[in-house]
Amino acid sequence: MINIAVLGYGVVGSGVVEVFYKNRESIQKKAGQEMEIKYILDVRDFPDSPYKDKFVKDFDIIANDESVKVVAEVIGGIEPSYTFVKTCLEKGKSVVTSNKELVASKGAELLAVAKEHHVNFFFEASVGGGIPIIRPLHMCLAANEIVEIEGILNGTTNFILTKMIRENMSFEAALKMAQELGYAERNPAADIEGHDACRKICILASLSFGSHVYPQDVYTKGITQITPEDVAYAESCDSVIKLIGRAKKMEDGRISAMVCPMFVSHESQLSTVDDVFNGILVKGDATGDVVFYGKGAGKLPTASAVVGDIVDCAKATDTSTSLHWEPSEGKNVVDKSENETAMYLRVKSDEVKVLDVARKLLGDIRVLSREGQPSDEFAFITPIAKEAVIDAAISRLESMGAEILGEVRILEC
Amino acid sequence: MINIAVLGYGVVGSGVVEVFYKNRESIQKKAGQEMEIKYILDVRDFPDSPYKDKFVKDFDIIANDESVKVVAEVIGGIEPSYTFVKTCLEKGKSVVTSNKELVASKGAELLAVAKEHHVNFFFEASVGGGIPIIRPLHMCLAANEIVEIEGILNGTTNFILTKMIRENMSFEAALKMAQELGYAERNPAADIEGHDACRKICILASLSFGSHVYPQDVYTKGITQITPEDVAYAESCDSVIKLIGRAKKMEDGRISAMVCPMFVSHESQLSTVDDVFNGILVKGDATGDVVFYGKGAGKLPTASAVVGDIVDCAKATDTSTSLHWEPSEGKNVVDKSENETAMYLRVKSDEVKVLDVARKLLGDIRVLSREGQPSDEFAFITPIAKEAVIDAAISRLESMGAEILGEVRILEC
Repeated sequence: MINIAVLGYGVVGSGVVEVFYKNRESIQKKAGQEMEIKYILDVRDFPDSPYKDKFVKDFDIIANDESVKVVAEVIGGIEPSYTFVKTCLEKGKSVVTSNKELVASKGAELLAVAKEHHVNFFFEASVGGGIPIIRPLHMCLAANEIVEIEGILNGTTNFILTKMIRENMSFEAALKMAQELGYAERNPAADIEGHDACRKICILASLSFGSHVYPQDVYTKGITQITPEDVAYAESCDSVIKLIGRAKKMEDGRISAMVCPMFVSHESQLSTVDDVFNGILVKGDATGDVVFYGKGAGKLPTASAVVGDIVDCAKATDTSTSLHWEPSEGKNVVDKSENETAMYLRVKSDEVKVLDVARKLLGDIRVLSREGQPSDEFAFITPIAKEAVIDAAISRLESMGAEILGEVRILEC
Repeated sequence: MINIAVLGYGVVGSGVVEVFYKNRESIQKKAGQEMEIKYILDVRDFPDSPYKDKFVKDFDIIANDESVKVVAEVIGGIEPSYTFVKTCLEKGKSVVTSNKELVASKGAELLAVAKEHHVNFFFEASVGGGIPIIRPLHMCLAANEIVEIEGILNGTTNFILTKMIRENMSFEAALKMAQELGYAERNPAADIEGHDACRKICILASLSFGSHVYPQDVYTKGITQITPEDVAYAESCDSVIKLIGRAKKMEDGRISAMVCPMFVSHESQLSTVDDVFNGILVKGDATGDVVFYGKGAGKLPTASAVVGDIVDCAKATDTSTSLHWEPSEGKNVVDKSENETAMYLRVKSDEVKVLDVARKLLGDIRVLSREGQPSDEFAFITPIAKEAVIDAAISRLESMGAEILGEVRILEC
């Protein structure tokens, strides 16, 4: 018999309890033993819950109960989650979590603590909700060197961009709609500023490349500055704008990682990932491109991923050797200025020669046009260049009175 | 130290050896121990191979070497593979294979033999080549009841159909091109008649629903009768024709499974799976739709999946409890006549009233049209009905002199 504790009875936590009892029979069959949720930790009271006898408010009851072998942390945020998770691991309990913030900040440390105590720290639900991605990355792709990962990792921003693309809505109107539908929170900053996607690409990059990539080292730009005009120019070159998290292994062993809106060509499988869906493209040296697609969030998909991890913990006899990465001092990520990309620029200028200047500075630019384009608006795509070079060209254009209205990177197919 | 034997040094076998030695360091790290390929079994001589000292022609050398703990069977076909695999399992060696024919016919039996001897029988490479699908299905989705699977499981036919759709080629011309490019074999029957896709959907259905689905019980229709006219009608209703393998759990617990060309709406994620790529859509009760996409065949993708399984065998301490299904007597699959579907029909008839008759027999049909449609050609989509009802209507149309030129099922989104 495996006793489980669930820390936090919010959306995901109540989903975990629901999925567990709904599929308990097949879960126990897959785990090969009896399983029971013994405790649910929450500061609130749930007097009408069918599980009311399981609620506790004191974490120490769980920490000190040796019969609890697996703990699901679904509180979110760094504290008290970090303290709880670390304590459980040190007490010889395996921990599973959906908490991307915790994994992105403390993953290497917590994996090391788990290893030291011969237990597991799993976090399938932290990226892609119900899409299996962490386990395929570290197990099925064991025989691959992963070269690059690029993904649409945040459903809220993907919903907003889809509305802007399909229904010509402004960012503000689309955000309001997302909030009304419950896809965006009242304070949407973590989504629309790209921080949520950043945590996820950090987890994927750390796992794929074996060295902890910290959120603060990853250049992150959200979608708040994207306008219907940018969407129209993207369409004029058979592309859509998506918020992309990307991580790539450079030849010198360092990692190039970033989160930003990008032009995605219709030829990319990611271009058809719409609405609240997520899509993650993994490039392996042997497999080629593999794409994982599905709902990246939501109570039941996320809960099912947490419960899947609980099953794996129940089956494990020791720490998984492959789900692992090393701590780093944050010098493993190349600076944004060294990144190479093609860039879409939308410029306001009274002088047509702005295009000639851009051509002179950057080489063979591709000029774009759109319906209703004002005579003082110019849009073009630069050749692939170091960001430092592009930034210098932008400064030069600004110095001659041009105003940069839009700036979006191009995803290479 | 784990010693490995590779049975068969064809395309996949040589790929396995190549991938193993190329990534040996990271493979050993992931497996947590030293690993070596000790034997390669092949009837042919490879005097110039860097691995020439490893070649043996006598299977018994491998079977009787207790130091060999993991065997990769990449010969293909039922015999001698079946005998070799069973012998290895009985001798306490784990076996991994890319052999879909073997797994589809003998999976339940070989999984039971593996369990009896506390070893593993893994076959990630048997479906979807390098796309991780078997492991996500049985592990990550542990907390889900899988409701339905539908997939583009054969790259050769998908390439042919893509050429027919994009370049208006005939089936024959597209097949010839596929053969010239090495995507189709000289005898292409297993691909174009749907048998390869059938074996794969049998494996996925057996694993998802826990009961062995045998190829001979699954209605299988290939793509040889698809014409450019059918492609044009599909386009007229925003669809493309794809060869789909589909398996669904019915309310009475039986399984509906079939392989056939289908109209796939542009709204489905599967509609954009083109060329030699595979795409597999898994519907779970908690996860919703999850899609896996990538190259379904090819030396290195398939080899990397085989090597991934080898790593998992090296790490395992006993038989995986979750990768398992029960034998069946073949009564677990519903007869095609009970299947419910909407159907596209293309009919040649001198009488316009053929549409009225169809409407009378089947209800509210949707009439389609195409450029250059002859006056004696009629095309329409039936409402959803039991196949028995549709077959009866077809017989009735034929009895009044109509000739059925095309017949393609509609995939529900």
